[in-house]
Amino acid sequence: MKHINLNADLGESFGPWRMGEDAALLQVVASASIACGFHAGDPTVMRRTVRQALDAGASLGAHPGWPDLQGFGRRPMQMSTAEVEALVIYQLGALAALAGAEGGRLSHVKPHGALSNQACADPALAAAIVRAVGAVDAELILLAPALSALARAGEDAGLRVALEIFADRAYADDGSLLPRSEAGAVLHEPAAIAAHVLGMLAAGGVRSARGKILPCRMDSICVHGDTPGAVAAARALRTALEDTGWQIATLPELLR
Amino acid sequence: MKHINLNADLGESFGPWRMGEDAALLQVVASASIACGFHAGDPTVMRRTVRQALDAGASLGAHPGWPDLQGFGRRPMQMSTAEVEALVIYQLGALAALAGAEGGRLSHVKPHGALSNQACADPALAAAIVRAVGAVDAELILLAPALSALARAGEDAGLRVALEIFADRAYADDGSLLPRSEAGAVLHEPAAIAAHVLGMLAAGGVRSARGKILPCRMDSICVHGDTPGAVAAARALRTALEDTGWQIATLPELLR
Amino acid sequence: MKHINLNADLGESFGPWRMGEDAALLQVVASASIACGFHAGDPTVMRRTVRQALDAGASLGAHPGWPDLQGFGRRPMQMSTAEVEALVIYQLGALAALAGAEGGRLSHVKPHGALSNQACADPALAAAIVRAVGAVDAELILLAPALSALARAGEDAGLRVALEIFADRAYADDGSLLPRSEAGAVLHEPAAIAAHVLGMLAAGGVRSARGKILPCRMDSICVHGDTPGAVAAARALRTALEDTGWQIATLPELLR
Amino acid sequence: MKHINLNADLGESFGPWRMGEDAALLQVVASASIACGFHAGDPTVMRRTVRQALDAGASLGAHPGWPDLQGFGRRPMQMSTAEVEALVIYQLGALAALAGAEGGRLSHVKPHGALSNQACADPALAAAIVRAVGAVDAELILLAPALSALARAGEDAGLRVALEIFADRAYADDGSLLPRSEAGAVLHEPAAIAAHVLGMLAAGGVRSARGKILPCRMDSICVHGDTPGAVAAARALRTALEDTGWQIATLPELLR
Repeated sequence: MKHINLNADLGESFGPWRMGEDAALLQVVASASIACGFHAGDPTVMRRTVRQALDAGASLGAHPGWPDLQGFGRRPMQMSTAEVEALVIYQLGALAALAGAEGGRLSHVKPHGALSNQACADPALAAAIVRAVGAVDAELILLAPALSALARAGEDAGLRVALEIFADRAYADDGSLLPRSEAGAVLHEPAAIAAHVLGMLAAGGVRSARGKILPCRMDSICVHGDTPGAVAAARALRTALEDTGWQIATLPELLR
Repeated sequence: MKHINLNADLGESFGPWRMGEDAALLQVVASASIACGFHAGDPTVMRRTVRQALDAGASLGAHPGWPDLQGFGRRPMQMSTAEVEALVIYQLGALAALAGAEGGRLSHVKPHGALSNQACADPALAAAIVRAVGAVDAELILLAPALSALARAGEDAGLRVALEIFADRAYADDGSLLPRSEAGAVLHEPAAIAAHVLGMLAAGGVRSARGKILPCRMDSICVHGDTPGAVAAARALRTALEDTGWQIATLPELLR
Repeated sequence: MKHINLNADLGESFGPWRMGEDAALLQVVASASIACGFHAGDPTVMRRTVRQALDAGASLGAHPGWPDLQGFGRRPMQMSTAEVEALVIYQLGALAALAGAEGGRLSHVKPHGALSNQACADPALAAAIVRAVGAVDAELILLAPALSALARAGEDAGLRVALEIFADRAYADDGSLLPRSEAGAVLHEPAAIAAHVLGMLAAGGVRSARGKILPCRMDSICVHGDTPGAVAAARALRTALEDTGWQIATLPELLR
Repeated sequence: MKHINLNADLGESFGPWRMGEDAALLQVVASASIACGFHAGDPTVMRRTVRQALDAGASLGAHPGWPDLQGFGRRPMQMSTAEVEALVIYQLGALAALAGAEGGRLSHVKPHGALSNQACADPALAAAIVRAVGAVDAELILLAPALSALARAGEDAGLRVALEIFADRAYADDGSLLPRSEAGAVLHEPAAIAAHVLGMLAAGGVRSARGKILPCRMDSICVHGDTPGAVAAARALRTALEDTGWQIATLPELLR
């Protein structure tokens, strides 16, 4: 039996503002990465999202980001590695406590947005994040993009690392994501998304937009719920995976 | 041997702005209540303060407050009890993780400023805070003003509660603090402060500005380091306590 | 010819989060009250909303609120009147500059949420807001609930005051709004909303939920766009007003 | 008679946290650049600082920065030029309104920290800031470092530009400031500071740490009040300037 994880970023509402189709996505994914109040989420939203994820049987992860609500954590920022380490520890601790209050427990960490993108290319930033994760709980799984400096930093530090591919994003030949601003960078058609993912799994590596195969392990597939039709595409992807013999597992089940 | 705790609020700097004489106060007190980033403190300040407190041998506590940096958490706010519960859990978790990253562990919680003042008079708010503390770690000690609704809520919920008096604040006849705006509400003279505290300890209860004695247990004395001369007064108080046979203990030592 | 104003609160998105049906509402109302970045809105949202309002021919107003994004400015706060005065001036100036950059000009001010509710019952707070408005531009119109302390403070200070009624809110016998938490406090049916407004205009005063008439001038009707069907109800109300002989005017046209 | 301006950044306190020796510096400088609430300052601090500056006879300027209180606006950020334009307009408008409320009027704008540093090297960012200044008031003087892309953008757009040198900072051979992290980047000795400035004025251009002269106009000298001894050094510099025949003027007097 082949196992793989499906994950999504959840809890990205803030105060009176709603974002994402969390309830629907939780019918699809097995692991939830929950915003921690810096780029999205607030303590009330975080607690509610933990509750929803637990009720749906999803494993819990923290989704820490830059302190930039207005920019949703998508604008690059620059801080010292000591500052980054402290702000990641802070966010993990905050969510861990809310998870505990609902009877749950964090099992993974996945950096968000620009923090993740920068760490995928910057080993020093990646190492700071990895130190933060290890300082909070050395059993936490780092969920990081396949082929990234972030994943390598986690492995170098002895963390359990789950390697992630993106269902709806096209790749450059070096394994990085095409910027959202480029044509074709984001896939919208359910059939195209399923074919993209199944193709990579069959090929045993990331496939770039120009057809290059970059061999790598693939543990988890990230799906989104913030664009129209995204939830339907995620649902279709899960069905396609199951139809081809994949069983969906939580991250702790997968890396047991 | 008589034991008592001395505590102070620390880590109230923010970004480039310094506040308080933390290093000096840590030579005086045995327990540190550390701001958690909502009314003061930021992740970097919090981590540094944890380190300083551990180096000084102080026990660690969280000092959660309203989300109001500009008002330093001293302006009353109104939220639902569910919101309060989540924001206290969030702050405790954040500091607990930073404490853990430095090899320490939170042993107490002391609400800050208006959050504390309101909870001392509002049983529903007090109960929300107490639920948050219990949800994070039922072994945490609640450090609360003697004679307050907050202390009673902690006892009712089965938390260990340390009862606190204020070295430099005058009391009303009902055991509440005189508002800072009233003449004589804040004591500045080291001799007056020591006499105030020793008098209450001798009398076995809070003594109001008008001389009324309100019998109560007194486990901890709060000293401040944010006004000129405050550190010197705190030092003098410690000496006066030791000279009269009191031994200073951390909160976990005291409530063992 | 009878003239009356229709106004709505706009620009309540923030960063990546959308709120309200601004484009649709701007087809209905003649005056826009635009959030100023403290309870909602950000500089980019504010500028875009100014542009939309100008394009639709609406007159521009500032909608200042408490500094509480998470609570959307709906949670009561307490500050000194000097602090309130400064924060209202700050918000008015910020929006005025963005309006000017788009070739527009603020003509009114309408406090938001809890800041407004508190000022409607607290003459000292109302006076602070009124001083702020006068300090920025003594020609600004204060848009305030009929029968409120806020309206009286504006009149006492010599500001032009436009008196507002709420299309979809039920009133208490003292002319205040029934709290949203009470049954029947918010009207949803377009026909009920139109009847509520036309009834008050015909009666020459606010009509409470229990049928009491409180005579007052009524210059402007506030409609909302944040609940399902609210825009349709606003559109129906405008049609009903026009069908009964009312001409919709901007606030500066009305108070010329 | 030779005229020159002395300017300082003021109003960098926030809430309960004090920073800078504003009252003392206002005895030295003729123009004040006041923080606008994004990297430092709050509405109450801003208003108080305007009042102090007016009382001291200083001309008023806005000192807008990145929205980063914790980092004091010294950490580089990345936003679209449209976002930058809106956030600068917002800050200028807010301070302009507070200035007006105190009977004053902004006469210049000087970007702060990383926003300034980045704009000195990035013509597109510089142009966005310049557009914001022009949109608020085309009569505003742009106070910008001599030899910078920011100054050139202001001149290209037809703004009045005052060129600034830094009294206590060493220069690289390309006219940029040596990073604070480099040895010798910040001068502390009053005599060295005065010699640095008088040398540049005599040479008719910026003098780099390695002795290279970069000819340029020099309209204003920036002094600081945030390091120990800085105010004394500023005072000594003013005396040295006056002793060598320079008369200190406000920016509007100088560029009249």
